[in-house]
Amino acid sequence: MKIARVRTAGEAVWGIVDGERVYRLEGSPWENPRRGAPLGELATVQLLAPCEPTKVVCIGLNYRAHAAETGQEVPPEPLMFLKPPTAVVGPGADVVWAPGSQRIDYEAELAVVFKRRAKHVPRGAYKDYVLGYTCANDVSARDFQRGDGQWARAKGSDTFCPLGPWIETELDPGNLRISGKLNGEVRQDSSTSDLAFDIDFLISHLTKYFTMEPGDVLITGTPAGIGEMNPGDEYEVTIEGIGSLKNRMTRG
Amino acid sequence: MKIARVRTAGEAVWGIVDGERVYRLEGSPWENPRRGAPLGELATVQLLAPCEPTKVVCIGLNYRAHAAETGQEVPPEPLMFLKPPTAVVGPGADVVWAPGSQRIDYEAELAVVFKRRAKHVPRGAYKDYVLGYTCANDVSARDFQRGDGQWARAKGSDTFCPLGPWIETELDPGNLRISGKLNGEVRQDSSTSDLAFDIDFLISHLTKYFTMEPGDVLITGTPAGIGEMNPGDEYEVTIEGIGSLKNRMTRG
Repeated sequence: MKIARVRTAGEAVWGIVDGERVYRLEGSPWENPRRGAPLGELATVQLLAPCEPTKVVCIGLNYRAHAAETGQEVPPEPLMFLKPPTAVVGPGADVVWAPGSQRIDYEAELAVVFKRRAKHVPRGAYKDYVLGYTCANDVSARDFQRGDGQWARAKGSDTFCPLGPWIETELDPGNLRISGKLNGEVRQDSSTSDLAFDIDFLISHLTKYFTMEPGDVLITGTPAGIGEMNPGDEYEVTIEGIGSLKNRMTRG
Repeated sequence: MKIARVRTAGEAVWGIVDGERVYRLEGSPWENPRRGAPLGELATVQLLAPCEPTKVVCIGLNYRAHAAETGQEVPPEPLMFLKPPTAVVGPGADVVWAPGSQRIDYEAELAVVFKRRAKHVPRGAYKDYVLGYTCANDVSARDFQRGDGQWARAKGSDTFCPLGPWIETELDPGNLRISGKLNGEVRQDSSTSDLAFDIDFLISHLTKYFTMEPGDVLITGTPAGIGEMNPGDEYEVTIEGIGSLKNRMTRG
Protein backbone atom coordinates (compact mmCIF):
# COMPACT_ATOMS: atom_id res chain seq x y z
CA MET A 1 0.00 0.00 0.00
CA LYS A 2 1.16 3.53 -0.80
CA ILE A 3 0.24 6.06 1.91
CA ALA A 4 0.46 9.71 0.94
CA ARG A 5 -0.49 13.12 2.20
CA VAL A 6 -2.33 15.34 -0.23
CA ARG A 7 -3.53 18.93 -0.30
CA THR A 8 -7.14 19.04 -1.41
CA ALA A 9 -9.52 21.99 -1.16
CA GLY A 10 -6.87 23.83 0.89
CA GLU A 11 -6.66 21.05 3.46
CA ALA A 12 -3.92 18.45 4.08
CA VAL A 13 -5.35 14.93 4.26
CA TRP A 14 -4.00 11.38 4.31
CA GLY A 15 -4.46 9.43 1.09
CA ILE A 16 -3.83 6.07 -0.50
CA VAL A 17 -2.28 5.90 -3.96
CA ASP A 18 -3.55 3.06 -6.13
CA GLY A 19 -2.39 3.03 -9.72
CA GLU A 20 -2.96 6.46 -11.22
CA ARG A 21 -5.52 7.58 -8.63
CA VAL A 22 -5.43 8.87 -5.08
CA TYR A 23 -8.12 7.95 -2.55
CA ARG A 24 -8.88 9.35 0.86
CA LEU A 25 -7.38 7.25 3.66
CA GLU A 26 -10.05 6.10 6.13
CA GLY A 27 -9.11 5.18 9.68
CA SER A 28 -5.61 5.86 10.97
CA PRO A 29 -2.47 5.75 8.81
CA TRP A 30 -0.76 3.92 11.72
CA GLU A 31 -3.23 1.08 12.05
CA ASN A 32 -5.48 -0.58 9.52
CA PRO A 33 -5.71 2.24 6.94
CA ARG A 34 -8.50 1.72 4.38
CA ARG A 35 -9.22 3.18 0.96
CA GLY A 36 -12.03 5.74 0.98
CA ALA A 37 -13.51 8.08 -1.64
CA PRO A 38 -11.40 9.16 -4.64
CA LEU A 39 -9.48 12.42 -4.25
CA GLY A 40 -8.29 12.71 -7.83
CA GLU A 41 -5.74 11.69 -10.42
CA LEU A 42 -2.18 11.23 -9.17
CA ALA A 43 -0.95 13.49 -11.97
CA THR A 44 -3.07 16.40 -10.77
CA VAL A 45 -3.20 16.25 -6.95
CA GLN A 46 -0.58 18.08 -4.85
CA LEU A 47 1.43 15.55 -2.87
CA LEU A 48 2.87 16.74 0.46
CA ALA A 49 5.62 15.13 2.53
CA PRO A 50 4.02 11.75 3.36
CA CYS A 51 4.26 12.26 7.15
CA GLU A 52 4.86 15.04 9.67
CA PRO A 53 7.79 13.91 11.79
CA THR A 54 8.48 15.50 15.19
CA LYS A 55 12.11 14.66 14.45
CA VAL A 56 14.24 13.12 11.72
CA VAL A 57 17.10 10.97 12.98
CA CYS A 58 19.79 10.80 10.31
CA ILE A 59 22.77 8.52 9.78
CA GLY A 60 26.07 9.72 8.33
CA LEU A 61 28.73 7.73 6.45
CA ASN A 62 26.65 4.57 6.20
CA TYR A 63 27.67 3.44 2.68
CA ARG A 64 31.33 2.39 2.43
CA ALA A 65 31.84 3.90 -1.04
CA HIS A 66 30.46 7.25 0.15
CA ALA A 67 32.63 7.21 3.29
CA ALA A 68 35.62 6.51 1.02
CA GLU A 69 34.79 9.39 -1.37
CA THR A 70 34.84 11.77 1.61
CA GLY A 71 38.17 10.33 2.79
CA GLN A 72 36.62 8.78 5.90
CA GLU A 73 35.72 5.36 7.23
CA VAL A 74 32.39 4.03 8.34
CA PRO A 75 32.39 4.79 12.09
CA PRO A 76 32.32 1.91 14.62
CA GLU A 77 28.82 2.93 15.72
CA PRO A 78 26.17 4.67 13.58
CA LEU A 79 26.88 8.40 13.31
CA MET A 80 23.59 10.05 14.27
CA PHE A 81 22.43 13.60 13.73
CA LEU A 82 19.08 15.37 13.74
CA LYS A 83 16.93 17.43 11.40
CA PRO A 84 14.00 19.43 12.82
CA PRO A 85 10.40 19.32 11.49
CA THR A 86 10.92 22.66 9.72
CA ALA A 87 13.44 21.01 7.39
CA VAL A 88 10.79 18.70 5.90
CA VAL A 89 9.22 19.50 2.52
CA GLY A 90 7.31 17.35 0.08
CA PRO A 91 7.67 16.19 -3.53
CA GLY A 92 8.06 19.06 -5.96
CA ALA A 93 8.69 21.63 -3.23
CA ASP A 94 11.61 24.00 -3.59
CA VAL A 95 14.82 23.51 -1.63
CA VAL A 96 15.88 27.00 -0.63
CA TRP A 97 19.57 27.98 -0.58
CA ALA A 98 20.89 28.66 2.95
CA PRO A 99 22.19 32.24 3.27
CA GLY A 100 25.96 32.50 3.31
CA SER A 101 26.67 28.98 2.07
CA GLN A 102 28.97 28.56 -0.94
CA ARG A 103 28.17 24.92 -1.70
CA ILE A 104 25.07 22.82 -1.19
CA ASP A 105 24.87 19.13 -2.15
CA TYR A 106 22.16 16.55 -2.83
CA GLU A 107 22.20 13.16 -1.05
CA ALA A 108 19.75 10.38 -2.06
CA GLU A 109 18.64 8.32 0.96
CA LEU A 110 16.20 5.61 1.99
CA ALA A 111 13.81 6.96 4.68
CA VAL A 112 12.04 4.79 7.26
CA VAL A 113 8.72 5.99 8.75
CA PHE A 114 7.69 4.80 12.23
CA LYS A 115 4.10 3.78 12.94
CA ARG A 116 4.18 3.50 16.70
CA ARG A 117 6.11 4.79 19.66
CA ALA A 118 9.44 2.99 19.73
CA LYS A 119 12.02 2.84 22.53
CA HIS A 120 14.56 0.10 23.18
CA VAL A 121 13.46 -1.91 20.13
CA PRO A 122 15.31 -5.26 20.26
CA ARG A 123 17.21 -6.63 17.26
CA GLY A 124 14.84 -8.48 14.95
CA ALA A 125 11.70 -6.58 15.99
CA TYR A 126 11.92 -3.44 13.83
CA LYS A 127 9.13 -4.45 11.45
CA ASP A 128 6.60 -4.08 14.28
CA TYR A 129 7.48 -0.39 14.48
CA VAL A 130 7.87 0.55 10.81
CA LEU A 131 4.98 1.84 8.74
CA GLY A 132 7.00 1.81 5.55
CA TYR A 133 9.64 3.45 3.39
CA THR A 134 10.01 6.59 1.32
CA CYS A 135 12.72 8.59 -0.47
CA ALA A 136 14.70 11.42 1.12
CA ASN A 137 17.19 14.02 -0.03
CA ASP A 138 19.62 14.83 2.79
CA VAL A 139 20.44 18.31 1.49
CA SER A 140 23.82 19.36 2.90
CA ALA A 141 25.63 22.72 2.93
CA ARG A 142 29.19 21.35 2.69
CA ASP A 143 31.01 24.49 3.78
CA PHE A 144 28.86 24.79 6.91
CA GLN A 145 29.27 21.07 7.52
CA ARG A 146 33.07 21.36 7.47
CA GLY A 147 33.31 24.69 9.26
CA ASP A 148 30.67 24.45 11.98
CA GLY A 149 31.57 21.13 13.58
CA GLN A 150 27.91 20.48 14.35
CA TRP A 151 25.72 19.88 11.30
CA ALA A 152 22.56 21.65 12.52
CA ARG A 153 22.38 24.40 9.88
CA ALA A 154 24.41 22.42 7.31
CA LYS A 155 21.75 19.71 7.19
CA GLY A 156 18.79 20.99 9.24
CA SER A 157 18.03 24.35 7.64
CA ASP A 158 14.49 25.01 6.39
CA THR A 159 13.63 22.82 3.33
CA PHE A 160 16.77 20.64 3.70
CA CYS A 161 14.77 17.39 4.11
CA PRO A 162 12.60 16.60 1.08
CA LEU A 163 10.57 13.42 1.72
CA GLY A 164 8.25 11.47 -0.59
CA PRO A 165 6.48 10.77 -2.83
CA TRP A 166 4.58 8.36 -0.51
CA ILE A 167 5.18 5.65 2.08
CA GLU A 168 5.37 2.15 0.61
CA THR A 169 4.26 -0.24 3.34
CA GLU A 170 4.98 -3.57 1.62
CA LEU A 171 8.69 -3.62 1.01
CA ASP A 172 11.79 -5.43 2.21
CA PRO A 173 14.44 -2.71 2.62
CA GLY A 174 17.42 -5.05 2.39
CA ASN A 175 18.31 -4.91 -1.30
CA LEU A 176 16.73 -1.99 -3.15
CA ARG A 177 18.35 -0.05 -5.96
CA ILE A 178 18.74 3.59 -4.91
CA SER A 179 19.70 6.23 -7.43
CA GLY A 180 19.77 9.96 -7.94
CA LYS A 181 19.69 12.12 -11.05
CA LEU A 182 20.80 15.73 -11.31
CA ASN A 183 18.84 17.40 -14.11
CA GLY A 184 18.17 13.96 -15.55
CA GLU A 185 21.78 12.69 -15.39
CA VAL A 186 22.60 9.76 -13.09
CA ARG A 187 24.91 10.82 -10.24
CA GLN A 188 24.21 8.20 -7.56
CA ASP A 189 23.41 4.54 -8.24
CA SER A 190 23.75 1.91 -5.54
CA SER A 191 21.79 -0.60 -3.48
CA THR A 192 20.60 -0.57 0.11
CA SER A 193 22.44 -3.90 0.40
CA ASP A 194 25.60 -1.75 0.66
CA LEU A 195 24.42 -0.12 3.91
CA ALA A 196 27.10 -0.61 6.56
CA PHE A 197 24.49 -0.66 9.37
CA ASP A 198 21.17 -2.13 8.24
CA ILE A 199 17.69 -0.92 9.22
CA ASP A 200 17.33 -3.55 11.93
CA PHE A 201 20.59 -2.53 13.61
CA LEU A 202 19.95 1.21 13.18
CA ILE A 203 16.53 1.04 14.83
CA SER A 204 17.76 -1.03 17.77
CA HIS A 205 20.64 1.42 18.22
CA LEU A 206 18.87 4.75 17.88
CA THR A 207 15.92 3.75 20.08
CA LYS A 208 18.31 3.25 23.00
CA TYR A 209 18.53 7.04 23.01
CA PHE A 210 15.55 8.50 21.18
CA THR A 211 11.90 7.61 21.61
CA MET A 212 10.48 7.59 18.09
CA GLU A 213 6.88 8.76 17.69
CA PRO A 214 4.39 7.72 14.97
CA GLY A 215 5.41 9.59 11.81
CA ASP A 216 8.99 10.13 12.98
CA VAL A 217 11.60 9.37 10.35
CA LEU A 218 15.00 7.72 10.13
CA ILE A 219 17.11 8.53 7.07
CA THR A 220 19.81 6.00 6.52
CA GLY A 221 22.79 7.61 4.79
CA THR A 222 23.72 8.28 1.18
CA PRO A 223 25.65 6.19 -1.37
CA ALA A 224 28.63 7.49 -3.34
CA GLY A 225 28.30 10.12 -6.03
CA ILE A 226 27.51 13.24 -4.02
CA GLY A 227 27.84 16.59 -5.70
CA GLU A 228 26.53 20.10 -5.74
CA MET A 229 23.01 21.27 -6.46
CA ASN A 230 22.83 24.85 -7.63
CA PRO A 231 19.85 27.20 -8.01
CA GLY A 232 17.73 25.94 -10.89
CA ASP A 233 19.00 22.35 -10.56
CA GLU A 234 16.54 19.52 -9.96
CA TYR A 235 17.50 16.36 -8.09
CA GLU A 236 15.46 13.19 -8.41
CA VAL A 237 15.84 10.38 -5.88
CA THR A 238 14.48 7.01 -7.05
CA ILE A 239 14.22 3.91 -4.88
CA GLU A 240 13.16 0.54 -6.31
CA GLY A 241 9.67 -0.41 -5.15
CA ILE A 242 8.88 3.09 -3.87
CA GLY A 243 9.05 5.73 -6.62
CA SER A 244 10.73 9.07 -7.24
CA LEU A 245 11.14 12.30 -5.29
CA LYS A 246 12.02 15.43 -7.29
CA ASN A 247 12.95 18.82 -5.88
CA ARG A 248 14.44 21.95 -7.38
CA MET A 249 16.95 24.27 -5.69
CA THR A 250 16.03 27.93 -5.58
CA ARG A 251 17.94 30.97 -4.42
CA GLY A 252 15.08 31.79 -2.01
CA MET B 1 3.70 37.24 34.18
CA LYS B 2 4.72 33.64 34.82
CA ILE B 3 3.26 31.19 32.30
CA ALA B 4 3.34 27.52 33.27
CA ARG B 5 2.00 24.18 32.15
CA VAL B 6 0.35 22.09 34.82
CA ARG B 7 -1.06 18.60 35.05
CA THR B 8 -4.48 18.74 36.67
CA ALA B 9 -7.07 15.94 36.75
CA GLY B 10 -4.87 13.95 34.38
CA GLU B 11 -4.82 16.72 31.78
CA ALA B 12 -2.02 19.11 30.77
CA VAL B 13 -3.22 22.74 30.78
CA TRP B 14 -1.66 26.18 30.53
CA GLY B 15 -1.50 28.13 33.77
CA ILE B 16 -0.45 31.46 35.23
CA VAL B 17 1.58 31.49 38.45
CA ASP B 18 0.83 34.40 40.76
CA GLY B 19 2.47 34.33 44.18
CA GLU B 20 1.85 30.93 45.74
CA ARG B 21 -1.08 30.01 43.53
CA VAL B 22 -1.58 28.74 40.01
CA TYR B 23 -4.54 29.84 37.87
CA ARG B 24 -5.86 28.53 34.60
CA LEU B 25 -4.62 30.55 31.62
CA GLU B 26 -7.51 31.89 29.55
CA GLY B 27 -7.01 32.76 25.90
CA SER B 28 -3.77 31.84 24.14
CA PRO B 29 -0.37 31.73 25.84
CA TRP B 30 1.06 33.44 22.72
CA GLU B 31 -1.25 36.44 22.72
CA ASN B 32 -3.01 38.27 25.52
CA PRO B 33 -3.07 35.44 28.13
CA ARG B 34 -5.43 36.14 31.06
CA ARG B 35 -5.75 34.70 34.55
CA GLY B 36 -8.72 32.35 34.93
CA ALA B 37 -9.99 30.11 37.73
CA PRO B 38 -7.56 28.87 40.41
CA LEU B 39 -5.94 25.47 39.76
CA GLY B 40 -4.29 25.07 43.16
CA GLU B 41 -1.34 25.92 45.35
CA LEU B 42 2.03 26.14 43.61
CA ALA B 43 3.47 23.79 46.23
CA THR B 44 1.02 21.02 45.36
CA VAL B 45 0.38 21.20 41.59
CA GLN B 46 2.53 19.24 39.16
CA LEU B 47 4.43 21.61 36.90
CA LEU B 48 5.31 20.34 33.42
CA ALA B 49 7.84 21.77 30.98
CA PRO B 50 6.38 25.26 30.35
CA CYS B 51 6.07 24.74 26.59
CA GLU B 52 6.11 21.95 24.01
CA PRO B 53 8.79 22.89 21.50
CA THR B 54 8.87 21.28 18.06
CA LYS B 55 12.63 21.85 18.26
CA VAL B 56 15.21 23.22 20.66
CA VAL B 57 18.02 25.18 19.00
CA CYS B 58 21.06 25.14 21.27
CA ILE B 59 24.24 27.22 21.37
CA GLY B 60 27.62 25.77 22.36
CA LEU B 61 30.65 27.58 23.83
CA ASN B 62 28.84 30.88 24.35
CA TYR B 63 30.43 31.93 27.68
CA ARG B 64 34.14 32.71 27.40
CA ALA B 65 35.03 31.16 30.78
CA HIS B 66 33.27 27.91 29.81
CA ALA B 67 34.97 27.81 26.40
CA ALA B 68 38.29 28.29 28.23
CA GLU B 69 37.60 25.47 30.71
CA THR B 70 37.06 23.10 27.78
CA GLY B 71 40.30 24.31 26.14
CA GLN B 72 38.45 25.99 23.27
CA GLU B 73 37.61 29.45 22.06
CA VAL B 74 34.25 31.02 21.42
CA PRO B 75 33.67 30.29 17.70
CA PRO B 76 33.47 33.17 15.20
CA GLU B 77 29.77 32.40 14.61
CA PRO B 78 27.33 30.84 17.10
CA LEU B 79 27.82 27.06 17.28
CA MET B 80 24.32 25.66 16.81
CA PHE B 81 23.01 22.19 17.53
CA LEU B 82 19.56 20.64 17.99
CA LYS B 83 17.63 18.73 20.64
CA PRO B 84 14.39 16.95 19.63
CA PRO B 85 11.04 17.31 21.45
CA THR B 86 11.56 13.93 23.15
CA ALA B 87 14.50 15.39 25.11
CA VAL B 88 12.25 17.86 26.93
CA VAL B 89 11.11 17.16 30.51
CA GLY B 90 9.70 19.41 33.20
CA PRO B 91 10.64 20.54 36.70
CA GLY B 92 11.16 17.64 39.09
CA ALA B 93 11.23 15.05 36.29
CA ASP B 94 14.00 12.48 36.26
CA VAL B 95 16.93 12.76 33.87
CA VAL B 96 17.60 9.20 32.74
CA TRP B 97 21.16 7.94 32.17
CA ALA B 98 21.94 7.20 28.50
CA PRO B 99 22.92 3.55 28.02
CA GLY B 100 26.64 3.03 27.48
CA SER B 101 27.74 6.50 28.58
CA GLN B 102 30.47 6.75 31.23
CA ARG B 103 30.03 10.42 32.07
CA ILE B 104 27.05 12.75 31.98
CA ASP B 105 27.24 16.43 32.95
CA TYR B 106 24.84 19.19 33.99
CA GLU B 107 24.86 22.58 32.22
CA ALA B 108 22.77 25.52 33.53
CA GLU B 109 21.40 27.66 30.69
CA LEU B 110 19.03 30.53 29.98
CA ALA B 111 16.21 29.38 27.68
CA VAL B 112 14.25 31.67 25.34
CA VAL B 113 10.69 30.71 24.35
CA PHE B 114 9.27 31.97 21.02
CA LYS B 115 5.69 33.25 20.82
CA ARG B 116 5.25 33.55 17.09
CA ARG B 117 6.68 32.14 13.90
CA ALA B 118 10.08 33.69 13.35
CA LYS B 119 12.26 33.69 10.21
CA HIS B 120 14.87 36.26 9.19
CA VAL B 121 14.32 38.33 12.37
CA PRO B 122 16.36 41.54 11.96
CA ARG B 123 18.75 42.76 14.67
CA GLY B 124 16.87 44.76 17.27
CA ALA B 125 13.47 43.07 16.69
CA TYR B 126 13.79 39.91 18.82
CA LYS B 127 11.43 41.11 21.56
CA ASP B 128 8.52 40.94 19.11
CA TYR B 129 9.10 37.17 18.81
CA VAL B 130 9.94 36.20 22.40
CA LEU B 131 7.28 35.10 24.86
CA GLY B 132 9.71 34.98 27.74
CA TYR B 133 12.52 33.14 29.51
CA THR B 134 12.94 29.99 31.54
CA CYS B 135 15.73 27.78 32.94
CA ALA B 136 17.27 24.84 31.09
CA ASN B 137 19.72 22.07 31.91
CA ASP B 138 21.66 21.11 28.77
CA VAL B 139 22.42 17.57 29.97
CA SER B 140 25.49 16.29 28.10
CA ALA B 141 27.04 12.82 27.84
CA ARG B 142 30.67 13.94 27.56
CA ASP B 143 32.10 10.69 26.24
CA PHE B 144 29.50 10.55 23.44
CA GLN B 145 30.09 14.24 22.76
CA ARG B 146 33.83 13.68 22.28
CA GLY B 147 33.59 10.34 20.50
CA ASP B 148 30.62 10.79 18.17
CA GLY B 149 31.53 14.03 16.45
CA GLN B 150 27.85 14.94 16.17
CA TRP B 151 26.14 15.70 19.50
CA ALA B 152 22.74 14.13 18.76
CA ARG B 153 22.72 11.40 21.40
CA ALA B 154 25.23 13.23 23.66
CA LYS B 155 22.80 16.12 24.13
CA GLY B 156 19.52 15.05 22.53
CA SER B 157 18.76 11.74 24.24
CA ASP B 158 15.38 11.33 25.95
CA THR B 159 15.11 13.56 29.11
CA PHE B 160 18.31 15.51 28.29
CA CYS B 161 16.52 18.88 28.14
CA PRO B 162 14.84 19.80 31.44
CA LEU B 163 12.97 23.13 31.09
CA GLY B 164 11.13 25.20 33.70
CA PRO B 165 9.74 26.02 36.14
CA TRP B 166 7.72 28.58 34.10
CA ILE B 167 8.14 31.26 31.43
CA GLU B 168 8.76 34.73 32.85
CA THR B 169 7.45 37.20 30.30
CA GLU B 170 8.64 40.46 31.87
CA LEU B 171 12.39 40.26 31.97
CA ASP B 172 15.41 41.84 30.33
CA PRO B 173 17.79 38.95 29.56
CA GLY B 174 20.94 41.09 29.35
CA ASN B 175 22.31 40.87 32.90
CA LEU B 176 20.79 38.06 34.96
CA ARG B 177 22.65 36.00 37.53
CA ILE B 178 22.65 32.34 36.45
CA SER B 179 23.77 29.63 38.84
CA GLY B 180 23.65 25.89 39.35
CA LYS B 181 23.86 23.74 42.47
CA LEU B 182 24.75 20.07 42.58
CA ASN B 183 23.06 18.51 45.61
CA GLY B 184 22.84 22.00 47.13
CA GLU B 185 26.46 23.02 46.47
CA VAL B 186 27.17 25.88 44.05
CA ARG B 187 28.97 24.70 40.90
CA GLN B 188 28.10 27.36 38.36
CA ASP B 189 27.66 31.07 39.11
CA SER B 190 27.80 33.67 36.37
CA SER B 191 25.76 36.31 34.60
CA THR B 192 24.07 36.39 31.21
CA SER B 193 26.09 39.59 30.63
CA ASP B 194 29.01 37.21 29.95
CA LEU B 195 27.29 35.69 26.90
CA ALA B 196 29.60 36.00 23.90
CA PHE B 197 26.63 36.24 21.49
CA ASP B 198 23.61 37.93 23.07
CA ILE B 199 19.95 36.99 22.58
CA ASP B 200 19.39 39.65 19.94
CA PHE B 201 22.31 38.40 17.84
CA LEU B 202 21.48 34.72 18.35
CA ILE B 203 17.88 35.15 17.19
CA SER B 204 18.85 37.14 14.11
CA HIS B 205 21.45 34.49 13.27
CA LEU B 206 19.51 31.29 13.87
CA THR B 207 16.36 32.49 12.11
CA LYS B 208 18.36 32.85 8.89
CA TYR B 209 18.31 29.04 8.85
CA PHE B 210 15.52 27.79 11.09
CA THR B 211 11.91 28.94 11.17
CA MET B 212 11.01 29.02 14.87
CA GLU B 213 7.42 28.10 15.76
CA PRO B 214 5.41 29.31 18.81
CA GLY B 215 6.72 27.36 21.80
CA ASP B 216 10.06 26.59 20.14
CA VAL B 217 13.07 27.14 22.38
CA LEU B 218 16.58 28.56 22.11
CA ILE B 219 19.03 27.60 24.83
CA THR B 220 21.94 29.94 25.00
CA GLY B 221 25.01 28.10 26.32
CA THR B 222 26.39 27.35 29.76
CA PRO B 223 28.79 29.30 31.99
CA ALA B 224 31.93 27.78 33.54
CA GLY B 225 31.79 25.17 36.28
CA ILE B 226 30.52 22.13 34.40
CA GLY B 227 30.85 18.75 36.04
CA GLU B 228 29.31 15.33 36.27
CA MET B 229 25.86 14.40 37.48
CA ASN B 230 25.59 10.83 38.68
CA PRO B 231 22.54 8.70 39.48
CA GLY B 232 20.91 10.09 42.63
CA ASP B 233 22.38 13.58 42.10
CA GLU B 234 20.08 16.58 41.85
CA TYR B 235 20.98 19.67 39.85
CA GLU B 236 19.23 22.98 40.44
CA VAL B 237 19.45 25.76 37.86
CA THR B 238 18.51 29.22 39.18
CA ILE B 239 18.16 32.34 37.06
CA GLU B 240 17.54 35.75 38.58
CA GLY B 241 14.00 36.96 37.92
CA ILE B 242 12.79 33.54 36.81
CA GLY B 243 13.16 30.87 39.51
CA SER B 244 14.67 27.42 39.92
CA LEU B 245 14.57 24.18 37.94
CA LYS B 246 15.51 20.98 39.83
CA ASN B 247 16.00 17.54 38.30
CA ARG B 248 17.46 14.31 39.59
CA MET B 249 19.56 11.83 37.59
CA THR B 250 18.37 8.22 37.63
CA ARG B 251 19.89 5.05 36.23
CA GLY B 252 16.66 4.45 34.24
